[in-house]
Amino acid sequence: MQRPAFEGPWKLAVRPYGPDEDFRYGSLMMSGNGYLGFRGGFPDFRKEEYAGCIVSDTYDCADGKWKELCTVPNALFAEVRLNKRKLSIHDSVDSRAGHALDFRYGETSGTASGTDGDLCMNFHRFASFPHLHCVWQRIELTSETGCRIDFLGGIDADPWSLNGRHFRTMELDRESGLLRADMVTSESGLPVSVVSGLRIQGTEPGPELHRERTGLYLVLELTVPPRRSIVIDQCMSVYSGNDTPDPGAAALKDAARGMSAGFDTELMKHRAHWDGLWQKYDISIDGDEEIQSLVRYNTYHNVIATPAHTDHLPIGARGLSCQAYQGAAFWDQEIFNLPMYIYTDPPAAAGILSYRYHTLPGALEKAKRLGYEGAYYPWISGDSGEELCPDHFFIDVLTGRKIRNHFNDWQIHISPDISYAVWEYYRATLDEEFLRTKGAEILFRVGQFLYSRVHYSPARERYEIIRVLGPDEYHENVDNNAFTNYQTCFALKIAAELFRRLEREDPDHLAKLSSRLGLAPPRVAEWEEMAQKLYLPQPDPESLLIEQFDGYFRHEDILPGPLAERLQKESEYWGWPNGIAFATQVIKQADVIQLFALHPFDKDVIAANYEYYEPRSQHRSSLSPGVHALVAARTGNMPRADEYLRRSLKIDIADTHPPDSGGTFIGGIHTAACGIAWQIVVKGFLGMEVSVDELRFQPRLPRGWNKLALSLRIRGVRIHLEARPDSLSLEAEDSAAAGVSVLVGEDRGILKPASRLVFNGKFVQ
Amino acid sequence: MQRPAFEGPWKLAVRPYGPDEDFRYGSLMMSGNGYLGFRGGFPDFRKEEYAGCIVSDTYDCADGKWKELCTVPNALFAEVRLNKRKLSIHDSVDSRAGHALDFRYGETSGTASGTDGDLCMNFHRFASFPHLHCVWQRIELTSETGCRIDFLGGIDADPWSLNGRHFRTMELDRESGLLRADMVTSESGLPVSVVSGLRIQGTEPGPELHRERTGLYLVLELTVPPRRSIVIDQCMSVYSGNDTPDPGAAALKDAARGMSAGFDTELMKHRAHWDGLWQKYDISIDGDEEIQSLVRYNTYHNVIATPAHTDHLPIGARGLSCQAYQGAAFWDQEIFNLPMYIYTDPPAAAGILSYRYHTLPGALEKAKRLGYEGAYYPWISGDSGEELCPDHFFIDVLTGRKIRNHFNDWQIHISPDISYAVWEYYRATLDEEFLRTKGAEILFRVGQFLYSRVHYSPARERYEIIRVLGPDEYHENVDNNAFTNYQTCFALKIAAELFRRLEREDPDHLAKLSSRLGLAPPRVAEWEEMAQKLYLPQPDPESLLIEQFDGYFRHEDILPGPLAERLQKESEYWGWPNGIAFATQVIKQADVIQLFALHPFDKDVIAANYEYYEPRSQHRSSLSPGVHALVAARTGNMPRADEYLRRSLKIDIADTHPPDSGGTFIGGIHTAACGIAWQIVVKGFLGMEVSVDELRFQPRLPRGWNKLALSLRIRGVRIHLEARPDSLSLEAEDSAAAGVSVLVGEDRGILKPASRLVFNGKFVQ
Repeated sequence: MQRPAFEGPWKLAVRPYGPDEDFRYGSLMMSGNGYLGFRGGFPDFRKEEYAGCIVSDTYDCADGKWKELCTVPNALFAEVRLNKRKLSIHDSVDSRAGHALDFRYGETSGTASGTDGDLCMNFHRFASFPHLHCVWQRIELTSETGCRIDFLGGIDADPWSLNGRHFRTMELDRESGLLRADMVTSESGLPVSVVSGLRIQGTEPGPELHRERTGLYLVLELTVPPRRSIVIDQCMSVYSGNDTPDPGAAALKDAARGMSAGFDTELMKHRAHWDGLWQKYDISIDGDEEIQSLVRYNTYHNVIATPAHTDHLPIGARGLSCQAYQGAAFWDQEIFNLPMYIYTDPPAAAGILSYRYHTLPGALEKAKRLGYEGAYYPWISGDSGEELCPDHFFIDVLTGRKIRNHFNDWQIHISPDISYAVWEYYRATLDEEFLRTKGAEILFRVGQFLYSRVHYSPARERYEIIRVLGPDEYHENVDNNAFTNYQTCFALKIAAELFRRLEREDPDHLAKLSSRLGLAPPRVAEWEEMAQKLYLPQPDPESLLIEQFDGYFRHEDILPGPLAERLQKESEYWGWPNGIAFATQVIKQADVIQLFALHPFDKDVIAANYEYYEPRSQHRSSLSPGVHALVAARTGNMPRADEYLRRSLKIDIADTHPPDSGGTFIGGIHTAACGIAWQIVVKGFLGMEVSVDELRFQPRLPRGWNKLALSLRIRGVRIHLEARPDSLSLEAEDSAAAGVSVLVGEDRGILKPASRLVFNGKFVQ
Repeated sequence: MQRPAFEGPWKLAVRPYGPDEDFRYGSLMMSGNGYLGFRGGFPDFRKEEYAGCIVSDTYDCADGKWKELCTVPNALFAEVRLNKRKLSIHDSVDSRAGHALDFRYGETSGTASGTDGDLCMNFHRFASFPHLHCVWQRIELTSETGCRIDFLGGIDADPWSLNGRHFRTMELDRESGLLRADMVTSESGLPVSVVSGLRIQGTEPGPELHRERTGLYLVLELTVPPRRSIVIDQCMSVYSGNDTPDPGAAALKDAARGMSAGFDTELMKHRAHWDGLWQKYDISIDGDEEIQSLVRYNTYHNVIATPAHTDHLPIGARGLSCQAYQGAAFWDQEIFNLPMYIYTDPPAAAGILSYRYHTLPGALEKAKRLGYEGAYYPWISGDSGEELCPDHFFIDVLTGRKIRNHFNDWQIHISPDISYAVWEYYRATLDEEFLRTKGAEILFRVGQFLYSRVHYSPARERYEIIRVLGPDEYHENVDNNAFTNYQTCFALKIAAELFRRLEREDPDHLAKLSSRLGLAPPRVAEWEEMAQKLYLPQPDPESLLIEQFDGYFRHEDILPGPLAERLQKESEYWGWPNGIAFATQVIKQADVIQLFALHPFDKDVIAANYEYYEPRSQHRSSLSPGVHALVAARTGNMPRADEYLRRSLKIDIADTHPPDSGGTFIGGIHTAACGIAWQIVVKGFLGMEVSVDELRFQPRLPRGWNKLALSLRIRGVRIHLEARPDSLSLEAEDSAAAGVSVLVGEDRGILKPASRLVFNGKFVQ
């Protein structure tokens, strides 16, 4: 494997291009804009090379099992032939040849050359941010000696698709000089249209139409003059029936508009848009170039995975990098991706949370189907909130039998996780309007669900949560999972708290809402009692350890390394029902450490549990290293913070997580790990906590970090933060907002609009 | 396989002796007396032929995993050699050759001959009932022409043992003309002694001592005169340190006493004892010879499995036929074996129930260990009540991985089953003394356990029982199992009822008892509320079906035959965690039918559920056919009653249940199936029900049964019952007891001591 490396602060490149790595590079070098993801790879890549443009909001189930987003026909396909031989990166021996991504602007590029090294092709591609439906590609061809080439460009309508063919009809046509493909999806019957525009500069084309069963192309014979490049610009636009009633017309119009504006103009607007995004999201680190680039690279992927343009789409667990995990939201969205937006771009965060509001019907339906009340959010949420997680997906590779994993019916923490995110959003923004109109219903519906899911033990005089699956998915069917119980308690508390506040402050609205929800004050009193008496596993007085679930400490105590020797096949699933980890203390990820990332605990308790759980965690989940980094950073465990920070930031670049688990494809960009990068720095190294009353910091910069700079938006105030080893400065822009109380260590100050606060201290460890 | 067949009403024989069937015949032809079980087989059989004498109350764990009863040295070993060649049943070609059991008197016998057919050996063996520690054997040798033989007889100290060698020391010696073996068990350190006596009639012996590492024998050269048999009598006696402080002395004394009395005298006393037993237990059926023999054969095995001589030993799931199932009690004991004794021999029943009283400490310890209160009886109960069921015993034969079956921690119905049996005993006997001194504590301790095990769902406003394993062991980890919930409700109700009665009638005793148990009236009120609000799955108004557990009807609906085609290996375990039946409606046995055997339901409900569950049951449990026979007989479903009656009665004779399951040996006599034979006739065909107020019958004799006669002992009254197609007669012996109210169909009468009641009706179907 040829590992990608950073070239300068903003570029990831792989040179030479490694063989058999098309899938990985296609994810790593992708361009995207939250509406669509255009996988990396060269213009001539087809499905064999995992070419694909994944479009949001196009759910379709083609194989009867996996509902997923469609990969649409690739309208930027281009192939160059010299002497009948295709110019291919796989044959390129030139030292310039390679593949790269400029993640400042989301520009994918590459260089390939002919086998004799004379003809050279550069391409350059970006998914436009100002025009979300457009992707642009520029191909430049140069030759020392000059040559004649054959060029084929247009629509490859047979791109890579994970689970079945998603278009039951497809019409390919030429109209107004543009190529178009009009499809209807197989199961959902959604119209989707793709349009391809082509412009050639520097030579005279003589285009002819070439039609294949699965493609429509323009064919040209072109002269590449000596030492003067010719330039071919391609524009693709795509719409689905969920975007507009007539996606064909819209795609045509958009492509025509784009072709008329031209590549350079479009690129300029696109870059300006990204400059604006980085003003919100960038973390500038002076003192560690690798970490600097890694943090930005991960943030880039969080941004392009996020449909910030709308309030009814989710952040997929693999973003739009491929169809894996169905383009769907998991709890990752709220706990890993969202916080960056909560603290920097509240409207984007509100949009994502609104998605959970709009998908309440699916959550209500799921709860009802399983015999519960309220909102049991889906483990894998489709755009309409229906549960996408099938009963069976892993295969017992030793027997060939399917495994009934209970992710979809026992992993209940998803619902309180969403309540937690609503509350985190509210604490940071004090957005009363959102809370009133959307958040309240989410919180109340989740409260209703939890109330119906929790049991009371009369003998132990406490409420218990029986038979769940925590984030550590190796241990299904456990009771009183620490993470789940604490989250449940929190969700019940805030739901009741909000209800009480609305009773005082907005009784009319509450009356309407609770009447619609069938919710009465005595029930809220029961929530309060339930939260009061819910069993929360406490630190053992001696060891300070919190048991991950009832009986965990009685499981066989073995570490992941020795345990792995019991594998009969490498690809075995380690968990339920009879995988090697199931009856041991080896965990996929550490629920108790995850708990510390969300709730305050004594430092000693955190340290003791970290020591215990960290070596027992396999970190098979890509969520795990980041959480370990965050908690280690927050508690001053700097060696571990550094180790896990790098490990988390490199999950995709170093390819530490295999794209297959128990026979299910799970490749692509690990969006949650990308999302937690920002949190590790801000909640970890800066120790930021936001309560309803104040903003707290407890900075602990890694040695060598001279300066850390970023922006926040708290309670409507834009704050520029600059941390150095001996100072923390906060500067608020002017606004109509009130001041924010700030606590740094023991020092307190009020940060008012258009003012600056500086705290001095020892902020390095 | 050579199938055994009945020869006359009381004899089961196999002729010729089939090859490779030593294990099966050894169980089928065994002799026993509730203290020990002496396996069938010929005198020269060693461990290779599964020779073994299993002695109760000798628990020992030799392999670190399986605690089981010991097979003691075989002091009845005898080998006959003619011209240096062993006389063996396996070489016998004579038509007389074969193996048999007279189950009227528990006499094992066999005939073998030399290869030339001239020398013939008959042997005859019985485990004495009047002298429980003695087993007798007589060998007769005959020859047409006369011959000289070599005889070797004495102690084979290396018998068949299932899980390891149970004696860490062994001394073999000769004393007072007797051979003795003195052992100490490996793990439990229990002394065990065996003594062997030998007497020869009809020829002059010249014994010499022959010692091997694992045996001590007398060697004789004997003349067998022409046409005059010589007779060799052997007496074995065995004691353990749990029987007497000096087992060696006791064994010597017993053998000396026996040798002095002689074989014929001892046999006479033994037969007289059996005559007395059959007066209590026999069911006489006129009109179906096969069923007659089968019912008696099964009753025989129930009797020899039952330690009626003591109040501190259990009935093992395989009796004393081998070491399988550890010689230990399961719920089989209370629900399958016990009822025959309850209604015919109350002191024997009280002894078995007292075993549960004496083993309360083990049940309390188990509950405590698992986080509960009260008495959680062990799934596999050792003699001291400790849980013998290991966490792992089945092996996933496809992967070689061990399976964590949750028989020991989730199969909670064992505790209420024991309460049910206590109540059944009380209803039949009105034995207030037992109830007060032992039964009450069992009922209250079980009540405490159930109270701590049940959860309340505030949303559903009912108590629920989460995560159990019902009798259908293919479906672990289910909620609200119908059988378990009804039994739990019943057990809570009767515990509370008894408490209330003692409050009124015996407050001083109750005060002492409840103080010792930490039980106060408010808690009993909570039991009453729990029983009141415990969720009992009700018949669906349309289909009348009762769901076996929450969600059962949503499982894949497939029948056992087609399902079996999914097996990859014949020996696969079908259940948890990922066996072929786990996610389907195929059940090992039918919990809802089992429920009908214990609790009253509408006839239509029973019929509808029988139709549904019966074809979905694999009847892999040997308990299943008998329960189906009982319920079918009681509800007049005569074709099914006949089918399942024969199937249940033939489980051992027809060898329908393999001796291995998932790598665990489970061979031997299916004692519970033997025990239910009596119940099928009495509770099924006679429709007997005993309430606290009266004795009810609803006779439905199978066509062809001209007369059915048996005896009962109800409330101290011995009743001779005779059922015919058109009449039912009940004759009470004289006694001091009060009369019993009897209801037959709609007719009622009072059966007084020394009187007779005759009911006429149509009692055939």
